[in-house]
Amino acid sequence: MESLAASFSASTTTILNSSSKLHHHPPRRFRFLSLSLPIFHKFKTCHKFSSKFPNHLNLLIVRSSSSSSITAKPSPEFQKKGGSDRKEEDNKLRALRELFTKPGVNVDAYIIPSQDAHQSEFIAECYMRRAYISGFTGSAGTAVVTKDKAALWTDGRYFLRAEKQLNSSWVLMRAGNLGVPTPSEWLNTVLAPGCRIGIDPFLFSSDAAKEFKEDISKGNHELVLLYDFNLVDEIWKESRPTPPKEPIRLHDLKYAGVDVSSKLSSLRSELRHAGASAIVISMLDEIAWLLNLRGNDVSHSPVMYAYLVVEIDGAKLFVDDTKVTPEVMEHLRNAGIELRAYESILSEIESLAAKGANLWLDTSSVNAAILNAYESACYKYPWKSATKSRRKKTVNLDSDGQSGGPCAVYRSSPVSLRKAVKNDAELEGMRNCHLRDAAALAQFWAWLEDEIQRDVILTEVEVADKLLEFRSHQDGFLDTSFDTISGSGANGAIIHYKPEPDSCSIVDEKELFLLDSGGQYIDGTTDITRTVHFGEPSARERECFTRVLQGHIALDQAVFPENTPGFVLDAFARSSLWKVGLDYRHGTGHGVGAALNVHEGPHSISFRFGNMTPLLRGMIVSNEPGYYEDHQFGIRIENLLYVKEVDTPNRFGGIGYLGFEKLTFVPIQTKLVDISLLSVADVEWLNSYHLQVWEKVSPLLDGSARQWLWNNTRPLTKL
Amino acid sequence: MESLAASFSASTTTILNSSSKLHHHPPRRFRFLSLSLPIFHKFKTCHKFSSKFPNHLNLLIVRSSSSSSITAKPSPEFQKKGGSDRKEEDNKLRALRELFTKPGVNVDAYIIPSQDAHQSEFIAECYMRRAYISGFTGSAGTAVVTKDKAALWTDGRYFLRAEKQLNSSWVLMRAGNLGVPTPSEWLNTVLAPGCRIGIDPFLFSSDAAKEFKEDISKGNHELVLLYDFNLVDEIWKESRPTPPKEPIRLHDLKYAGVDVSSKLSSLRSELRHAGASAIVISMLDEIAWLLNLRGNDVSHSPVMYAYLVVEIDGAKLFVDDTKVTPEVMEHLRNAGIELRAYESILSEIESLAAKGANLWLDTSSVNAAILNAYESACYKYPWKSATKSRRKKTVNLDSDGQSGGPCAVYRSSPVSLRKAVKNDAELEGMRNCHLRDAAALAQFWAWLEDEIQRDVILTEVEVADKLLEFRSHQDGFLDTSFDTISGSGANGAIIHYKPEPDSCSIVDEKELFLLDSGGQYIDGTTDITRTVHFGEPSARERECFTRVLQGHIALDQAVFPENTPGFVLDAFARSSLWKVGLDYRHGTGHGVGAALNVHEGPHSISFRFGNMTPLLRGMIVSNEPGYYEDHQFGIRIENLLYVKEVDTPNRFGGIGYLGFEKLTFVPIQTKLVDISLLSVADVEWLNSYHLQVWEKVSPLLDGSARQWLWNNTRPLTKL
Repeated sequence: MESLAASFSASTTTILNSSSKLHHHPPRRFRFLSLSLPIFHKFKTCHKFSSKFPNHLNLLIVRSSSSSSITAKPSPEFQKKGGSDRKEEDNKLRALRELFTKPGVNVDAYIIPSQDAHQSEFIAECYMRRAYISGFTGSAGTAVVTKDKAALWTDGRYFLRAEKQLNSSWVLMRAGNLGVPTPSEWLNTVLAPGCRIGIDPFLFSSDAAKEFKEDISKGNHELVLLYDFNLVDEIWKESRPTPPKEPIRLHDLKYAGVDVSSKLSSLRSELRHAGASAIVISMLDEIAWLLNLRGNDVSHSPVMYAYLVVEIDGAKLFVDDTKVTPEVMEHLRNAGIELRAYESILSEIESLAAKGANLWLDTSSVNAAILNAYESACYKYPWKSATKSRRKKTVNLDSDGQSGGPCAVYRSSPVSLRKAVKNDAELEGMRNCHLRDAAALAQFWAWLEDEIQRDVILTEVEVADKLLEFRSHQDGFLDTSFDTISGSGANGAIIHYKPEPDSCSIVDEKELFLLDSGGQYIDGTTDITRTVHFGEPSARERECFTRVLQGHIALDQAVFPENTPGFVLDAFARSSLWKVGLDYRHGTGHGVGAALNVHEGPHSISFRFGNMTPLLRGMIVSNEPGYYEDHQFGIRIENLLYVKEVDTPNRFGGIGYLGFEKLTFVPIQTKLVDISLLSVADVEWLNSYHLQVWEKVSPLLDGSARQWLWNNTRPLTKL
Repeated sequence: MESLAASFSASTTTILNSSSKLHHHPPRRFRFLSLSLPIFHKFKTCHKFSSKFPNHLNLLIVRSSSSSSITAKPSPEFQKKGGSDRKEEDNKLRALRELFTKPGVNVDAYIIPSQDAHQSEFIAECYMRRAYISGFTGSAGTAVVTKDKAALWTDGRYFLRAEKQLNSSWVLMRAGNLGVPTPSEWLNTVLAPGCRIGIDPFLFSSDAAKEFKEDISKGNHELVLLYDFNLVDEIWKESRPTPPKEPIRLHDLKYAGVDVSSKLSSLRSELRHAGASAIVISMLDEIAWLLNLRGNDVSHSPVMYAYLVVEIDGAKLFVDDTKVTPEVMEHLRNAGIELRAYESILSEIESLAAKGANLWLDTSSVNAAILNAYESACYKYPWKSATKSRRKKTVNLDSDGQSGGPCAVYRSSPVSLRKAVKNDAELEGMRNCHLRDAAALAQFWAWLEDEIQRDVILTEVEVADKLLEFRSHQDGFLDTSFDTISGSGANGAIIHYKPEPDSCSIVDEKELFLLDSGGQYIDGTTDITRTVHFGEPSARERECFTRVLQGHIALDQAVFPENTPGFVLDAFARSSLWKVGLDYRHGTGHGVGAALNVHEGPHSISFRFGNMTPLLRGMIVSNEPGYYEDHQFGIRIENLLYVKEVDTPNRFGGIGYLGFEKLTFVPIQTKLVDISLLSVADVEWLNSYHLQVWEKVSPLLDGSARQWLWNNTRPLTKL
């Protein structure tokens, strides 16, 4: 089995954002599993806040040669080289700096972030510019190059890798360490006042660019938006991978539940209500959801690179038309959607401004190129004096209606919340694919237990490969939903652990083994973590596991009034750990798309109490408390849940009370449970869950996997 | 026994604030037991947020003729008359309106709020202007008088009383009801544009005045600050009670723990650190705490009317000097504090501005008269051009240091947090007075059970009177810490219930009885609620009681990392109720002063997640979940706790883990417990608590009270 690592999944928050101003300005899309303490987090805006997608899921993808249904992407060419070709690196920097003085560029420094133009969690190889220029292949990092210096910021997960991969031309900036400046602070120090600092405005969200601009203004520097070309692409040239050309497919109505016309109609109502006449949608999962389309442009997320402009009376999809099959073309035509070239988005924005459109822009996701194009164009046209003063977060059209020229509506995307609240068909698909996923996991665990009993030596990578093989045999399997985290012993304590084939550990009977994985299926998306021991766990491991399990149970069983934001429930998942002075440094739950991104907002369950989005019926959320003992072991127990109305005997306040229903049905290893710590109710929960697991999953199994499921769903008795 | 009601305890938030903009601008001092739902609350600033003091504690004060130690205040004269003298009311309005056209006044409307000049929870009679002018005696309300209209805003607690007490000249505005305008909205409707609306600037916090000014500017009206006299006082004349003249006393160092010089020295460090050279403190409990003094000017709170100005090199107390005994004078002199007349505060502010002082002002508590005097004076002096631009929330002195003239520091008072974190002596006093208070309560409950068994007819008021009698026999008892809430049956469901002698219910063996009361002692302050049944409670009552108890236990046992804000713990107290669709519409915990105000900030435990103040070692907080079934019964179980370090076996993150220690030791009625709902751990908590109650309180008791304590501390057994 070949291991094909695609490790460049982009952080949707630049290091610029996440490290520099964490206390004051948590990035819109927060780091789900960051290393900062819960209590240091402050508020930001409420409904704009959307969950940041974890990077704890970047591991490996393997292509099983025995299965044709696996679509994991091949490793980028430069990754294979690692940081070995140090001479080449220097040449890249030299070439980049030569461009600084080119006419139309004229900059003193250039920033190369990890992102693509859509704030995607997983990005196509051709957009992995930061990795190309620096040689550093971690998923999060920002490169900053001046005329005589080059620095790379990354966080604690990647310090070791960056040390290995960066050559001597680069300075490693260990973001989060005491005294380490942010990129803007560093630039304000190393540059003489009055410099020009260039960025590719497509690669910064409008908010991030604005914040960066303000920060470097303290050093009297100017932010230069270089629209015409990306400087890294200029030197990458022929060796740059081509943008993905994979065909787009229809997402069947039986899985989507609502047709495109209805979705567009709802969206247009929201536009009218907000006083907007058009919206630019740039988040790839929002486009895929809205159009009932799925793509294949990046690993793990079934999306395609595109922008979508929806006006009151029309819609345009900006996409490489070679990806558009006749069937998709027909589908789009039926929904009244025209095709445009991906690259023509800016001219469309200018046209919208020219005709006076009130454009709805989510400045936390729409890139600075688009925002700036709109604002600049508005000034060009006759109503330019009115525009600036009429910029509002919330627009109520003035009494002069449309006559005053375009009026931007800066609000979070209305698609995000609609996408998060699943309809019956989406929930049905999620339930179904979770059972098939559970069957694959049962087969996998049965196999693994057997292998280890037979003293077969298996690495973390081999184990993950085998899991993919089992999943790939399930109907409708398409891809892993993120890089599998397969961590034995001390590696389990590394929250974002990524085993490498040549250096990873053995999975054996001596240590805890943490496995966090998920699948993309035609009808849904899974994400599950189990922690197991194949030998005799220590008392310490059992106590910690049991306390994590108690947190998992407490959250699973929570009932709460309508309109409760997720963070209210977060402490339930920590309480048992807190009692003995333990905790975990990540959130407890994230949203999950239906046959879409494994991490989505806008809701979350987290100690970051800035996310005020209430949990709504039909939302899907993970329940994944954990505990990580440095250099020893890691524990995480994760199920996916969906929010449902609970039929409580009372309805105080005349409102509904909500709770959770489980999607995930895979045994939790009872060997790791210290039953003396569990309450009677906890034991009943566990037994009831295992009964459901047996009833729902055993019909899909036979042989040793069925026997394994039986063995692992036997009830516990508390005396 | 004579019942002397003092019902005018001021709401520290005007109706103006609390009703008009609750969703967007929660008032700094939030309503602890308001009727708004948790989930509708939004954030505000973080550390500035301070807990609003509940008004659920306004009931009656009784003077026991058998005890000379009781200092409850007599009822105001006008209260006795109630709203009967309707002719006089009209005369008052007529007289008030005649003043509108007086030179130097010239207003079209005048606002009369409930407050005194210090945002006090309990105010002196002479400041009960809104009650005088309107006849309405509720604790919260705002009167607005125009040339031809008069309207009074109050909230749901007081609709019935207001209907009775207001004469036909007044319109009752039922704040919170659908479609009821706020005072500013109403004024913007009923007044022609361009009117002048007058207020007494002493009676509005700076923030409230600013907000009101902005609101009426939408109607093109002008806010007129009438400094020279209060229009109501002008017509109140001779019948107006004189300001309190009660002597100030020393708060013994053995209770205060830290001497005044040390406290002032710490405060001055904070001033220097913030770039301030002086601070005006106007909150009466902050002055009392800082100076180790106690007063007797209002019911329930041992404070004196005063302002305190602390400069780097001196301090001045603005107080009626007839209250200052030679001993207190000596005490102040030793701490370097000069005396000034209470009324001369504004001229001192002007002097401070004149000499270029950088004044620290907490705009949420300092009144608009002071703020405005400072800002106006700054403009008068040579540095006037610099002042405006140098106003900052946080001041770092410019490079030109002090030379640029005064520079205001607008921040929350630094005294609030220092006062909230109790030192060892304060905690010792709190522990001691709680045991004596518990002894009084044991005597009281033993007496009451006996009376009811003997079929003696007792009203809610008589029962509260008797409780005061028992408390008054305890060493060091001074006053009730708030008006006792004595609610039988359906009255218990009225969170702010105030029984009246001529209309209150009987306490009998048929219904639940809720008793929320507290005492002011020389060494501390108590606040306790118990709910009991003297007959056979229904299954419903037992289930609800048990779920409230489970919430109480869950919060009591919580362990949490350092720096956790109280709201993180709030859901623990609601979880058991939520499971069956029940909830309560008030917060779970408030701060309590040490021999000071029964409600203090800045911390709280509440569903209002805007209060980011972490719970710190030494803070005192109430634990009082409840459940209220309209027209049926009310349940609340309240202990006071203090925050302590917990010796956890681990210290994940290298930080401390905190928990609570109980101050209150009074039995919880086990008859009301449905043991089938309790976990084994819950039962153990209850038995352990009752064992502590017996061990700590029985030595203070003999006879029937000791027997009652024994009977009511027997362990439960869960089979």
